[in-house]
Amino acid sequence: MSLHRPYPASAIQAWDHETDIAVIGFGAAGACAAIEGALAGARVMLFERGSGSGGASALSGGEIYIGGSGGTDAQRAAGFEDSTEDMAAYLKAAGGPCADEAKCDLYARESLAHYGWLKEQGIPYRGNYLPGKHIEPVDDSTLMWSGSEAAWPFCDIARPAPRGHVIQHVGWGGGRPLVDLLESRARALGVEVVTDARAVALVQDEDRRVVGVVVRIDNVNRFVRAAKGVVLCTGGFVFNEDMRRRYCPETFKISSPIGDQDDGSGIEMGVGAGGDAIHMEQFFTTCPWTMPEPQAHGVFVNQAGQRFINEDCYHGRVSRVAVDQMGDRVYLLLDIAHFDQPLEMAGITIAGTGETWEEVETELDMAPGTLSATMAFYNAHAAEGRDPLFHKKPPILTPLDQGPFVALELNFQNSYFSFFTLGGLRTSVDGEVLDHGGAPVPGLFAAGRCTSSLPAWGHGYSSGLSLADCTFFGRQAGRKAARG
Amino acid sequence: MSLHRPYPASAIQAWDHETDIAVIGFGAAGACAAIEGALAGARVMLFERGSGSGGASALSGGEIYIGGSGGTDAQRAAGFEDSTEDMAAYLKAAGGPCADEAKCDLYARESLAHYGWLKEQGIPYRGNYLPGKHIEPVDDSTLMWSGSEAAWPFCDIARPAPRGHVIQHVGWGGGRPLVDLLESRARALGVEVVTDARAVALVQDEDRRVVGVVVRIDNVNRFVRAAKGVVLCTGGFVFNEDMRRRYCPETFKISSPIGDQDDGSGIEMGVGAGGDAIHMEQFFTTCPWTMPEPQAHGVFVNQAGQRFINEDCYHGRVSRVAVDQMGDRVYLLLDIAHFDQPLEMAGITIAGTGETWEEVETELDMAPGTLSATMAFYNAHAAEGRDPLFHKKPPILTPLDQGPFVALELNFQNSYFSFFTLGGLRTSVDGEVLDHGGAPVPGLFAAGRCTSSLPAWGHGYSSGLSLADCTFFGRQAGRKAARG
Repeated sequence: MSLHRPYPASAIQAWDHETDIAVIGFGAAGACAAIEGALAGARVMLFERGSGSGGASALSGGEIYIGGSGGTDAQRAAGFEDSTEDMAAYLKAAGGPCADEAKCDLYARESLAHYGWLKEQGIPYRGNYLPGKHIEPVDDSTLMWSGSEAAWPFCDIARPAPRGHVIQHVGWGGGRPLVDLLESRARALGVEVVTDARAVALVQDEDRRVVGVVVRIDNVNRFVRAAKGVVLCTGGFVFNEDMRRRYCPETFKISSPIGDQDDGSGIEMGVGAGGDAIHMEQFFTTCPWTMPEPQAHGVFVNQAGQRFINEDCYHGRVSRVAVDQMGDRVYLLLDIAHFDQPLEMAGITIAGTGETWEEVETELDMAPGTLSATMAFYNAHAAEGRDPLFHKKPPILTPLDQGPFVALELNFQNSYFSFFTLGGLRTSVDGEVLDHGGAPVPGLFAAGRCTSSLPAWGHGYSSGLSLADCTFFGRQAGRKAARG
Repeated sequence: MSLHRPYPASAIQAWDHETDIAVIGFGAAGACAAIEGALAGARVMLFERGSGSGGASALSGGEIYIGGSGGTDAQRAAGFEDSTEDMAAYLKAAGGPCADEAKCDLYARESLAHYGWLKEQGIPYRGNYLPGKHIEPVDDSTLMWSGSEAAWPFCDIARPAPRGHVIQHVGWGGGRPLVDLLESRARALGVEVVTDARAVALVQDEDRRVVGVVVRIDNVNRFVRAAKGVVLCTGGFVFNEDMRRRYCPETFKISSPIGDQDDGSGIEMGVGAGGDAIHMEQFFTTCPWTMPEPQAHGVFVNQAGQRFINEDCYHGRVSRVAVDQMGDRVYLLLDIAHFDQPLEMAGITIAGTGETWEEVETELDMAPGTLSATMAFYNAHAAEGRDPLFHKKPPILTPLDQGPFVALELNFQNSYFSFFTLGGLRTSVDGEVLDHGGAPVPGLFAAGRCTSSLPAWGHGYSSGLSLADCTFFGRQAGRKAARG
């Protein structure tokens, strides 16, 4: 039995289970696929290799990227109109060269309705807006800025609006209650959940149709017939070092994979059945350098003392561009007015201090006239409210001229650059797994991080894109599978 | 008939041709695979979709990366010892995060013997050394620097030596006579060459063994039985826009694909038969900015006026890092002592001039104190023979302080940034196509740019790596196939 090759249906004597739709993986994508399958009247079995629901979704903040159609209740209450065109334009810019334009357009159009659907499933939203720059809400607010919407160049491409809609939940970690509520809903609809059940192969008939899945339960292979299809919701491959080496080797520059058993098995099974895997080199990374918030005012330089980004972008975009810099670290420069002890988990250390930027430069062993010149130029323009190089905007753009000064070190190996993979199976807007010629692999569907989808490009990632993708395109896959 | 799916052997009523080894593609890789197959006693048929031999190899300079084992005749005559360890270390550094270490080690060990083999096939080498920085030899010299060996950081990783061994041939374009000689040799050994013959599908039996290939000849599908195996030598996918969009979308930033019908068909056929395609996002690019040679002394800045690389690296590495910069262009800065009219084909224009660097900065609409500060810093250190930021070395490191000054524009769309793809089938050191689990696909072999191999990483490319890979690993594949 190999993940990489489908098991021939002709070799199966008897099926152990029969259902209409077999969903593999019980994160947000799998839960939403199961719910929609059940709502459409299909029998649904959901197999999860862990001992309960969760996946990487439960490790997240429970934030979903939503907007367009004039704006959600929360957006409008906070004074933000949000057009579908602006939302689509932002999604495409965030997808960069990897953008799936059809998915961006569809999701921008359907996002508001999807928000309504999430509420119908029981997800609570307080509906209020939390201003400022946060990684996850500090209270139970439910709307926040979660990407680079207000930052250059995105602000010139689409009218900015906050679109991070977070489940009402006090503090970090809204992903867990989000998945719990989706699980309750799925169970209430009659979805049969089997945990500690690891999918080990797809079953394919002679016409290449996926007709079932082999699931290992209690150390025995069980044959599951899925009359209408199999939906892979198995997550990315951040915990599969061999796959990372083959497809995404830049991630070895950083050291903190995040996920929940994301070993790429669904991608491998999908490819084995004829699916195409795309943009496999893409990954998201972030280091929580905007905690505490005043540090968001800082300036980043690389080891040559050069700035490389407008630091008012989303922390994940800044971190991703940081990892592109030559060498093994970057520095976050702050003055006393904006320095506070970094979050301990971030693993950010103090690399140099000084009464002047020249002193900091010396402490970092940089040549005279590098970092100090960068800061003199930055401060002179920031005082005028301008950033001619990278177009950072006030109020985050502010002179850093109140000594003493500090250089924090974000070290790619020793600081907490968490990361996960973004590449995966190529799918249609309906969640069908597509082959190399662009045709659906009959009977096979996928959603979430085992696909390449809305969050396609590491440099354009925004919080909430992955859960938006999991929940919306999970639903699409479940519905399409139910149609048979 | 689909490129993406093997044709079942059971569906074939009668074979039109029977051979031991079917080689697909008549560039350098295919020629060398065919020669070795024939030398090992196998019957070999070689199918080429074009009307003659050539492929991308014939468009090249005919330069092959060779060294190690104490040095070639040409290296030793020029005073360069070259150890196998240094060669292997350089190859691994040049492969960066994508390096296939086993291939690097093997090729470093066997490179000198491979040089002998090439000579035995009739490739002439004058054996002399051409100093300086050239894209291809200006005369019939046969040894030159072809990579970043002498530049930081490579010079600290491996003792530098020139390793670009060029077929003796006056001027550019040694690739064509190189392939012609290999073709003569293949034909002399009895290889049956069929041109205007396009492979449209592999033939696979029920045990997943590749047993033949379907070739379209005179608009008819012909079934070719290959008792020992099929060797794919079909090139990369630079001319397949759909594949580039799925796997290598960054290439849309630049505009000049180079190759010869490199449509990725061999990669698709290999993947369809169960092969794994890796590092598909990687590409080589170069803009001939070191022509004429004095321009190699220039300084590159991005649109923020920042340097980004030691400009004494290989022109392809500099060009690749240039394309990483934000925006749509970079500038090459020169003083009157080092300026000469750029090569017309390069599409490099003059974007600004001035009696001072400040005037150039103004002409480029850059903020005061950006480009001019970069050049003041550079010149002050260059005068001392130092480049504290990027470690460029004398004599290429020299002050650019003799006005008037000029900024040349290398525009990613309008200048000649030629490019080709580097990702492809994963193969063993013996040229076996490997599946997702790392096991060989029985009967299937590949070499050249339809594989990911020695030239694995765009940022570390060196001239001669691709032909080294084609010729050496083409031989490996042909030999392994002949063993059955």
